[in-house]
Amino acid sequence: MTTTATTARERMLLAKEAARSVGLLTDASKRDALRVIASAIDKAAAEIVAANVEDLERGRTDGLSVALQDRLRLDEPRVLALAAAVREIAELPDPVGRVLDRRTLANGVELTKVAVPFGVVGSIYEARPNVTVDIAALALRSGNAVVLRGGSAAERTNAALVRTMRGALADCGVDPEAIQTVDDFGREGARELMQARGVVDVLVPRGSAQLIETVVTESLVPVIETGAGVVHIVLDASAPLDWSRDIVVNAKTQRPSVCNSVETVLVHRDAAARLVPPVVEALIAQGVTVHGDEAVRSVADGVTPATDEDWATEYLSLDIAMKVVEDLDEALAHIRRYSTHHTESIITQDAANAERFLAEVDSAVVMANASTRFTDGGEFGFGAEVGISTQKLHARGPMGLAELTSTKWLARGDGQVRA
Amino acid sequence: MTTTATTARERMLLAKEAARSVGLLTDASKRDALRVIASAIDKAAAEIVAANVEDLERGRTDGLSVALQDRLRLDEPRVLALAAAVREIAELPDPVGRVLDRRTLANGVELTKVAVPFGVVGSIYEARPNVTVDIAALALRSGNAVVLRGGSAAERTNAALVRTMRGALADCGVDPEAIQTVDDFGREGARELMQARGVVDVLVPRGSAQLIETVVTESLVPVIETGAGVVHIVLDASAPLDWSRDIVVNAKTQRPSVCNSVETVLVHRDAAARLVPPVVEALIAQGVTVHGDEAVRSVADGVTPATDEDWATEYLSLDIAMKVVEDLDEALAHIRRYSTHHTESIITQDAANAERFLAEVDSAVVMANASTRFTDGGEFGFGAEVGISTQKLHARGPMGLAELTSTKWLARGDGQVRA
Repeated sequence: MTTTATTARERMLLAKEAARSVGLLTDASKRDALRVIASAIDKAAAEIVAANVEDLERGRTDGLSVALQDRLRLDEPRVLALAAAVREIAELPDPVGRVLDRRTLANGVELTKVAVPFGVVGSIYEARPNVTVDIAALALRSGNAVVLRGGSAAERTNAALVRTMRGALADCGVDPEAIQTVDDFGREGARELMQARGVVDVLVPRGSAQLIETVVTESLVPVIETGAGVVHIVLDASAPLDWSRDIVVNAKTQRPSVCNSVETVLVHRDAAARLVPPVVEALIAQGVTVHGDEAVRSVADGVTPATDEDWATEYLSLDIAMKVVEDLDEALAHIRRYSTHHTESIITQDAANAERFLAEVDSAVVMANASTRFTDGGEFGFGAEVGISTQKLHARGPMGLAELTSTKWLARGDGQVRA
Repeated sequence: MTTTATTARERMLLAKEAARSVGLLTDASKRDALRVIASAIDKAAAEIVAANVEDLERGRTDGLSVALQDRLRLDEPRVLALAAAVREIAELPDPVGRVLDRRTLANGVELTKVAVPFGVVGSIYEARPNVTVDIAALALRSGNAVVLRGGSAAERTNAALVRTMRGALADCGVDPEAIQTVDDFGREGARELMQARGVVDVLVPRGSAQLIETVVTESLVPVIETGAGVVHIVLDASAPLDWSRDIVVNAKTQRPSVCNSVETVLVHRDAAARLVPPVVEALIAQGVTVHGDEAVRSVADGVTPATDEDWATEYLSLDIAMKVVEDLDEALAHIRRYSTHHTESIITQDAANAERFLAEVDSAVVMANASTRFTDGGEFGFGAEVGISTQKLHARGPMGLAELTSTKWLARGDGQVRA
C-alpha cells in the first residue's frame, strides 16, 4: 500500500497520528499484525527479490563495493528468513503496560508507573534492507509507529518491503500509516527526520561510525547511539592459556565484521612470553593479521608493526592489535583512552583483578573470562535486538523491546489536593 | 577551595577524572561527604550571604526585576535551609549498585545489570543559587561529578557556594575537582558545556522554556528536558462540584509560579452551567484572573475573553484559561494540541472515562481526581528532585537520584566462547 503523503513532514505527521491507535492495540492485535506482515512478506518474495535485483544492478553500475552489494542482496532465502524473524518478534512478550513502580501516597492517591510506547520511532541506516523489516517489526511489537530512512542504494527494495508491510497492516485493520519511509526524499528525508522534534520521539541510527556521528551531531530528536566498538580483551598475569587463546580467537574470528568482535588485546608483561606466542600463532592460523607493538614482536613471529592509529581502529576485519602493558593500571588507562564503551573483557584467575576490572571499566558490557561476542540481544535472551547502545541515557548495551518503551505515571485519587 | 584550571574545557576534564574516584566511593563515604558539605555551608553562611549581597546590589544596578531579585536572594535562613537539604539528601539510599536484572546463560555466563553513576552531570540554570547546591548534592549522592553553569546574576554567590563545597570535599578526602563551575566564562562556558560530548555524560537544563529550548537545540551532550508545563484539568460531565472546585483552586493557587500548577481548565458542555459559575467564583475569590471562551463567559461573571494564545500559555501566575468542550474527544484533542506533556488530570465519576483519559493522554503524569500539584519528587516520595522530565528518553516525570544513574552489564564467565 503506497502513501498519498507528498512530503517527508506529512508522512511523519501521519505516523504520529497512527501512533495513537497503534499505542492502544492489545497484545493479541499486535501479535496478529506481525503474523500477517510475515505472511505478506512470504507472498511478496518474488516482487521483493525483483526490486532488489534492480537495486543491485544500479549498485554495480554505480561502483558499489562487493561487500556492500552482499549486504544489500535479498535473495529468496533471505526474504523468507526476514519473514521468519518477524514471526519470532510476534511471539515475544508485549513490553507495553508492564508495571514498573507502584506507590500509595499517605493521602490515598495511587501512583503506578507503567511502560508505554515511545510513539514514533525513527531510524536512519545504511543499505541493509533487513533493518527495514527488523525495526518496523520491533517498533510495532512495542506499540510504536516507525519512520524509516534506509539509504538510497536499497531504495527499491525498501519501497517494496514497506509497501508489503503497509498492505498487511491495512488487511488486519491497523492504520498502515504506522509504517513510513522517507527514502525517496534522499538526504532531505534524513535531514527532516533529524529535525522532527515533537513528532518523532526517538531516533536510532544504525550503521557506520560516521553515519552515527552525523546523526548525533545534527539531530534535534533525542538519539540512541548504537554500535561502534573498539573492543578490548585484557590478558592478565594469571590468564590461563586455553581461555586466552579460545576467547581471543573466538572474539576476533567468529564474525569479524560486527561491533562486538575484539579489536585490541592487551597482555600483562608477566604473561607476555607465556601467552603471546601461542595466541598469535592461533590467530595467524585463522588468517588474522596481528598488529603488535615492539614487545609483542619481540616474542612472536609474523606480527606486523602497530602504529598509534591501530589502537583507535575498529577494524571490523581479520586484523587485531596487540600490546604488552606493565600492569592492570596501564591496561585500564589504555581502555579509558581508546575504548568506545561497548564491551571489554579481562581473562584472569585473580578474582580481585576481575572485580576491579568489572567495577572500573566504563563500558556498556564489562566481562571477566568470557568472549566479547556475547554482547548481543539474542545471546542475552532478549529474543530480538534493536541495536547495541553505547551511550548512557535510557539504554546501555543490547536493546530489546523494553528499550523501545518510555514510561508514564498514572495517578488515581478521589479528590485529593496538596496541602 | 578554588581551582587552578584556567579554561572551561580543562575544568570539565578535571571533573571527568574526578568522576572515576567519586563513582567508586562507598555509600558511607558519599553520605559523609554530604554531611561535611552541609556543615561547611552552615559555617560559611556569613561569607555566602555577603557574596549574595554583592550579586543583589549589582542586580539592582542592572535593573533585575524584583521577582528575579527574590529568586537570587540568599539570606542566612535560606543558607541554613540549603545545608539542611544537603543533610536530607545525605540520608537517601544510595542509587548506585542496585541490581536491575540478572540472568544466567545456558553456557553458565552470569549476567548482572547494575546501576552505575553517569560520570559527569552538567547543569545549566538561571539565577537560583539554591540549584547550585541541590544539583551538586544530588550528583555526588549518586556518585557523579558535576559541572555547573548558573547564570551571571548569581556569579559571586555561586562562586562562594562552589568554593565552600570543594573545600569540604578536600577536607574529607574526596577529589574536590568533582564540583566545577564554568560561571566565570559567561556564555562561552555554557557553550563549551553543551559541546562537551564524551566528557559530560548528561546535561540537565533548569529554568525558563527559552533556556531549555536553547539547550535542547544546541547541545551535543544528551539532554534531559525538564519543566515547561501547560497543564490541563478536564471537568467531565460527571465531575463532582466539590472535587472540581477544590482541585482547580489548589492546582492554580497553591503555588502558581511552578510548572505543575494548572493553566487550562476544559469543561464538558453538559457540566458547564453546573460547574463553571462556582469554580470561577472560587478562583476569583483567590485573586485569579479567568480567561474564558464565549461559552464560559455566557454562564459566569467576571471572566476576561480568552484568545487562541491563552491556550498555549504557561502563565506561571494567578491567571487561568477556561474553555467549554463538546465531549471528552474534544478535550483530548485540545490536550494533544496544547499540552507540554507534563501533567494532566480529569475530574470525573465515570470510571471508563477516567481510564480512557489515563490511557490516551501522552504526558509524564496523567491523573484522575487529584491535583496536578502532586507531580513532584518530594510528593512522590523520592526525597529529592533533580527536576521534572517532560521528555520520553531515560526519565519521565519527577526525577530522583535513580534518574541520575545509568546502567552497566557485568558478565562473569569461566572461559565461555560463542558457538
